[in-house]
Amino acid sequence: MRAIQYTAFGTRPQLVDVERPRPGPGEVLLRITASGLCHSDEFVMAMPQDGYPYPMPMTLGHEPAGVVEELGEGASGVTVGDAVIVYGCWGCGVCAMCADGSENLCLTGMLSPGLGVNGAMAEFMVVDTPRHLVPIGDLDPVRAASLTDAALTPYQAIKSVLPRIVGGTTTVVIGAGGLGHVAIQLLRALTPTRVVALDIGEDKLAFARENGAHEAFTSEPAAADKVKQLTGGRGADVVLDFVGMDVTGELAVACGGVASAVVVVGAGLGGAKIGLTSAPYNMTVSTSLWGRRKELIELVEMARRGQVQIHTTTYPITEGEQAYEDVHAGRIVGRAVVVP
Amino acid sequence: MRAIQYTAFGTRPQLVDVERPRPGPGEVLLRITASGLCHSDEFVMAMPQDGYPYPMPMTLGHEPAGVVEELGEGASGVTVGDAVIVYGCWGCGVCAMCADGSENLCLTGMLSPGLGVNGAMAEFMVVDTPRHLVPIGDLDPVRAASLTDAALTPYQAIKSVLPRIVGGTTTVVIGAGGLGHVAIQLLRALTPTRVVALDIGEDKLAFARENGAHEAFTSEPAAADKVKQLTGGRGADVVLDFVGMDVTGELAVACGGVASAVVVVGAGLGGAKIGLTSAPYNMTVSTSLWGRRKELIELVEMARRGQVQIHTTTYPITEGEQAYEDVHAGRIVGRAVVVP
Amino acid sequence: MRAIQYTAFGTRPQLVDVERPRPGPGEVLLRITASGLCHSDEFVMAMPQDGYPYPMPMTLGHEPAGVVEELGEGASGVTVGDAVIVYGCWGCGVCAMCADGSENLCLTGMLSPGLGVNGAMAEFMVVDTPRHLVPIGDLDPVRAASLTDAALTPYQAIKSVLPRIVGGTTTVVIGAGGLGHVAIQLLRALTPTRVVALDIGEDKLAFARENGAHEAFTSEPAAADKVKQLTGGRGADVVLDFVGMDVTGELAVACGGVASAVVVVGAGLGGAKIGLTSAPYNMTVSTSLWGRRKELIELVEMARRGQVQIHTTTYPITEGEQAYEDVHAGRIVGRAVVVP
Amino acid sequence: MRAIQYTAFGTRPQLVDVERPRPGPGEVLLRITASGLCHSDEFVMAMPQDGYPYPMPMTLGHEPAGVVEELGEGASGVTVGDAVIVYGCWGCGVCAMCADGSENLCLTGMLSPGLGVNGAMAEFMVVDTPRHLVPIGDLDPVRAASLTDAALTPYQAIKSVLPRIVGGTTTVVIGAGGLGHVAIQLLRALTPTRVVALDIGEDKLAFARENGAHEAFTSEPAAADKVKQLTGGRGADVVLDFVGMDVTGELAVACGGVASAVVVVGAGLGGAKIGLTSAPYNMTVSTSLWGRRKELIELVEMARRGQVQIHTTTYPITEGEQAYEDVHAGRIVGRAVVVP
Repeated sequence: MRAIQYTAFGTRPQLVDVERPRPGPGEVLLRITASGLCHSDEFVMAMPQDGYPYPMPMTLGHEPAGVVEELGEGASGVTVGDAVIVYGCWGCGVCAMCADGSENLCLTGMLSPGLGVNGAMAEFMVVDTPRHLVPIGDLDPVRAASLTDAALTPYQAIKSVLPRIVGGTTTVVIGAGGLGHVAIQLLRALTPTRVVALDIGEDKLAFARENGAHEAFTSEPAAADKVKQLTGGRGADVVLDFVGMDVTGELAVACGGVASAVVVVGAGLGGAKIGLTSAPYNMTVSTSLWGRRKELIELVEMARRGQVQIHTTTYPITEGEQAYEDVHAGRIVGRAVVVP
Repeated sequence: MRAIQYTAFGTRPQLVDVERPRPGPGEVLLRITASGLCHSDEFVMAMPQDGYPYPMPMTLGHEPAGVVEELGEGASGVTVGDAVIVYGCWGCGVCAMCADGSENLCLTGMLSPGLGVNGAMAEFMVVDTPRHLVPIGDLDPVRAASLTDAALTPYQAIKSVLPRIVGGTTTVVIGAGGLGHVAIQLLRALTPTRVVALDIGEDKLAFARENGAHEAFTSEPAAADKVKQLTGGRGADVVLDFVGMDVTGELAVACGGVASAVVVVGAGLGGAKIGLTSAPYNMTVSTSLWGRRKELIELVEMARRGQVQIHTTTYPITEGEQAYEDVHAGRIVGRAVVVP
Repeated sequence: MRAIQYTAFGTRPQLVDVERPRPGPGEVLLRITASGLCHSDEFVMAMPQDGYPYPMPMTLGHEPAGVVEELGEGASGVTVGDAVIVYGCWGCGVCAMCADGSENLCLTGMLSPGLGVNGAMAEFMVVDTPRHLVPIGDLDPVRAASLTDAALTPYQAIKSVLPRIVGGTTTVVIGAGGLGHVAIQLLRALTPTRVVALDIGEDKLAFARENGAHEAFTSEPAAADKVKQLTGGRGADVVLDFVGMDVTGELAVACGGVASAVVVVGAGLGGAKIGLTSAPYNMTVSTSLWGRRKELIELVEMARRGQVQIHTTTYPITEGEQAYEDVHAGRIVGRAVVVP
Repeated sequence: MRAIQYTAFGTRPQLVDVERPRPGPGEVLLRITASGLCHSDEFVMAMPQDGYPYPMPMTLGHEPAGVVEELGEGASGVTVGDAVIVYGCWGCGVCAMCADGSENLCLTGMLSPGLGVNGAMAEFMVVDTPRHLVPIGDLDPVRAASLTDAALTPYQAIKSVLPRIVGGTTTVVIGAGGLGHVAIQLLRALTPTRVVALDIGEDKLAFARENGAHEAFTSEPAAADKVKQLTGGRGADVVLDFVGMDVTGELAVACGGVASAVVVVGAGLGGAKIGLTSAPYNMTVSTSLWGRRKELIELVEMARRGQVQIHTTTYPITEGEQAYEDVHAGRIVGRAVVVP
């Protein structure tokens, strides 16, 4: 079957022909219908050879949609022909975090398709257990695939601060790209908050407004003053940072007010710092990694109701290499999705 | 000045001429600009003479909007000319509940304008302390007056269960009248939930849909089956009962699913009953009285953003007696507001 | 092997000899080291033949402790020789509730050992998946077995209201038996609350005090007045009802104060009812069934630290029939545990 | 009357004779019975003259206990002779934060006795409103005075993360001094957590253990490894930093595990920094300033029950200057309290 793999350090993803996998006991074979492409793939390919934690070669893709093709021995809970998406945080299922429904925080370290085992940029893919499949019914798989990360990640971040986002609040979204534009949609659907998007470039600001941002400003230190002005001097109630660099961490803290919350979602190698006297009183900073399976189930229903619509550009798998180039070059607005 | 008072047991509200009040130390005199009319006024006038807890005569009206006319000695925090609405839960300010910001649950028993002291159905009114005033800026006072009860009461009820109303949920509103229609609007603005309204009469169901209900059914035992059907057998996640009779309490429990919540807001002298084996597992029933001042501040900002718009019918104070008759006869859709 | 089974309607549990089971794919075989005996077993044996939902005969026992004896094909996450207890809420693992870590509320209906499949009153037992095993290390299995229900059930009930049980609060425990005495211990370990136990009979009240109750009164309507008196008229902050009859539901509501919470844990076929005007304002009533696996993991650590010590009476399996008679006759204080 | 005042920049506190104050309208005059001495007083006296925000001279002392001596015109809710302590966060009472019961976060900036107006190091003191008084009944005022800050501050910090401190958890307290030793007591009373104290010097570690710490280690980078070891590699669930310097912020983050919380309480001019890839996943850092009035009410009841006992050293007011020297020199274990 065809697959797009990362095959050697220093190379770009490659369309290769590999053997179609078979499901082992308890596993499930999916026929892939769509596979979202995420910046994390670039992150993996930028890792140094020394200490690289994954197998090589490895099929990329951790935002899979597919149809159940075959059940391994003892696998139950799904039926051949079911349309599904795949929850990508494959935890041990046994530890305290998994017991709590937070496989994304698995204490033994989660494994993910495309990030440790062969992923979804292929015609078929093996899923370790039926519990990692979420039915989507007649949802368009191209629209549904990226729910698994591009929507799930901002959704968890927002849910972690949802009780704060009540009437009259203001929420800042730093970075209105693949995840950020979905965050804006989710905030509009989930809360009554005023959404202020910060990004760089008029096209990004326009994209933010199209996705529901009430205001969109250039992401620079002066943006904090604009947020303060909009809020009568109080500052934002919540700031979501989808970049995660030191400069955005500082901007996030500068935008927030007394008793506000900053959530760092971006993996930009930086962060946010607060102290009692160096930030508004009783501020909170937290980080948020991917999401919970329960939350993905909730998102599927939101998508069914039209409350979240990921902006996608579709590529056939034969042009998957080009999809990676376009993402790499920043030419994609929203999310690139590969269809086998 | 003119005022509408309850003057004697067995009589209807009367337009009378009384002396204009003066603010004592720490108090504030308001010139009334609008005064919402609530079913609770009827509740008061239906109380038996024996044990009647309020003064007689008493000016009615606990949904006041006004302009600060004069400050009593030592009163501060507001300025003559400020446009305000009045938070009606006048707690002691000292007890543990008031210390927690819940004057509506004051342990010494709250006093309210129109429900214990002279209220807002008059040209002027005295407010006990500046902290019970909430600025409204240039909001239309006719639209703002009923935020103080008709919006605040459902808002607290919804906030008490807000963390449950996440993506993919269904919420049932029993009773789409003065409070219920605002509840529907608030649910739409605050959450991504599907709203199902239950009431009696096609006009009420149409009114519910106009205010944002996705579905509206006749309030009868069979409605629970419709809710179950809509939710794939699971039942609603949240049920808000704005009637509060035994029959609606039973309906509420019947509509709810595993781990769902019922909030009884209506003062219909009945309630809801649950046991481990007689209701879906881990269901919660709670009651909710009026609201917190902090919540009223939040609502004013929601009104400013157009997220809540109470449906009102306006009467000049000279026709205030008629307003009471129309409410009494059930001829008002939404809320009646009297303007001096 | 020896097992205690419910073999025919209208009979008492019987010590029988049955074939030792084998673990299927993904399953685990346990050598049982201790098996707690619960009133629910009596509940099962009292069910009418018509509509009886379980297989017959069926080995009883849903509070298992054991040692991993053999792994079925593909089972992983535990090792032969591991000392464990068994989480008894065997959910589907796939539905939204299971995804949330609440297998006790599984939307497809959970199955439990001794309550649907063969249980722990035997020398060996098959567990459906490694994720239902919780390691106990060197904890005494006799003390640990009943953590799975007699401790887990009150622990979930308490955790559901834990944020309310802050400094200066009062909590009422109705019923100080197998679950109630553990609830008292847990409240003392988990919170600073004053614990008031209500039960019938001096021995029960003394047992409550031994387990940490600050006060213990006879369970009767007048007890509510004593609670009011103890709390300066306010009423309790939390009431846990381990009986679940209408009479205890009424007592629970009568003991509670403004903004208090009642949790109905007992399966006594009754419940608690509240309405806005018929109970203290903003009261909450909820039910609580068994518990979450995450909570059982927490309890094991509490037991390791000596913060919960279930009072047990031990029987060899050869006297298991007698154990059931003693529980049936109410001769057991705390919990009966059968050792193979 | 006698008072200890800060009278000129660069000087130490001075015992002076000043006029006895009179309560204005709505105010209350207290006869002081005890006055706790806090490091914040030193913080004030270290402020530069340029931009110094307080009056000069100013009576120090923001942990007052006293007896109501006289009520200003219109003041109500307390009675002459009532024994009270004073809640020191004097907010406006009107803004959204005050409306929420969080005067410590007053949006207009709170004023405090001894930190903006004359404080409690005197024979008499004026309190701005009766709502800032909390009755203590027959509690020893020397023990009760410091509840207002030395206990309230750690209590709010702990309450902000209380739902996380469940069975089986570990909590680290950095700094076991005036506030930290109370934090240890509160953690023991409020939760089942294992408490690990970090400080410098054997006497401090011994003091931590006396106050209930299960473990006490020297505060140094290696302490994080010890915490990891104690917790089977997971790290602490909660870390409370009562120092607030960069070095303790880094230590706090290093001690925490996945999904843990760090609360920065100390005003040491530093803080804690986290990013998605530079700290355990889904960690939270927050700051916590003083506390809520509701929480002080809860603490008084905890003190009455013996659940918190601040370690105090008493000085007559004539030796108040010496008290300040002893605190300055670090000679006080626990809290110094001045008695007029």
